[in-house]
Amino acid sequence: MTGDSTRPLQVPRAAAAGGPGLFVTFEGGDGAGKTTQASLLEEWLTDQGHQVVRTREPGGTEVGVRIRDIVLHHRGHVASRAEALLYAADRAHHVETLVRPAIARGDVVIQDRYLDSSVAYQGAGRVLDADDVRALSLWAAEGLLPDLTVLLDLDPAAARARLDADDKPFDRLEAEKSEFHARVRAGFLALAADEPERFLVLDAARPADELAARVREAVGRRLG
Amino acid sequence: MTGDSTRPLQVPRAAAAGGPGLFVTFEGGDGAGKTTQASLLEEWLTDQGHQVVRTREPGGTEVGVRIRDIVLHHRGHVASRAEALLYAADRAHHVETLVRPAIARGDVVIQDRYLDSSVAYQGAGRVLDADDVRALSLWAAEGLLPDLTVLLDLDPAAARARLDADDKPFDRLEAEKSEFHARVRAGFLALAADEPERFLVLDAARPADELAARVREAVGRRLG
Repeated sequence: MTGDSTRPLQVPRAAAAGGPGLFVTFEGGDGAGKTTQASLLEEWLTDQGHQVVRTREPGGTEVGVRIRDIVLHHRGHVASRAEALLYAADRAHHVETLVRPAIARGDVVIQDRYLDSSVAYQGAGRVLDADDVRALSLWAAEGLLPDLTVLLDLDPAAARARLDADDKPFDRLEAEKSEFHARVRAGFLALAADEPERFLVLDAARPADELAARVREAVGRRLG
Repeated sequence: MTGDSTRPLQVPRAAAAGGPGLFVTFEGGDGAGKTTQASLLEEWLTDQGHQVVRTREPGGTEVGVRIRDIVLHHRGHVASRAEALLYAADRAHHVETLVRPAIARGDVVIQDRYLDSSVAYQGAGRVLDADDVRALSLWAAEGLLPDLTVLLDLDPAAARARLDADDKPFDRLEAEKSEFHARVRAGFLALAADEPERFLVLDAARPADELAARVREAVGRRLG
């Protein structure tokens, strides 16, 4: 095995677990209402007698909490590749020890963020190749895709207008942040367009109860 | 991008940095004498006026210390893929923030363990594909190979006797079975056979000063 003959990292075939449980992820920018919708779905499923596992990435396991702490709270620079690998490590442990066992038991896993966040955020940051990040995630998760991904899509400018009642002018940093969030949003929408069967794209500006009804309808259909 | 069309993780071409400094790694099982030989080499190089950076993986950086702590001292199971990704994350951060800058300054980096350890140990564990682990490492390190890798080859029984004599506490890896160490040794030897230009394989049972002379000769030749 010489340097030249090094082969690429082989990625397991991407697919949903195929039951008996269900794996539902919520994606979208911060403030799009993921937590609210996840809670409403959990309530509805529990009322119907389903076992629900609410979780998140990064940090859904004990190992994950320690990884999350490095990624989010380390003082100083963390190399981009290290950051992507740490997120993938959290994902690998989380999927193997928590998500897959829950699906195998027949539970419904409701998760805040999964591989689509990694791809959309890295793609928007334009430091690493988004396809590399997806491949890394799929290797980590042994190819596990959600049965349903709810994308809560929100126009960053509209979100900002709602938040900024003060009508403060943008400085340069804020403008850059705004462009970054626009790229994240475009990334999520592109992923949804590539996998229309998996994604439910919702306009997060709509009322919460209207969105919840759409989510229930999509989940109910997948529960059979 | 559907599941089926997911492409593998592309690995940068593997190569040494090509100067102006030098990157020397020491490999082999625990108890083979890596620390002793690294110290003797450092002394010799420093006497000759070279700037030397002594480092190790995992744990050569502040971020790496935290990663090492998860991998080696977490109570309970860490998923195999997560463990491999954590080692790769440590490597990515270490190479980008410490090893490459040192080589670029013209320093000699003397490192305890690098990607060959990942491949040999994972290959011996037979849980993950050793080629996958190598690809992951090379992605993390952006393809950086050492200019010279000294493999201190030692019969595992002799290594065990040395460690017992030192009365050093076992960490999780050291506590594994002896057949495992035999497979690690075979893995290292196979890697050395594949890249004879990069590897210097030494019989670690020989006297330390004799080994040190062989190492100095190989390093001296690469320093031009």
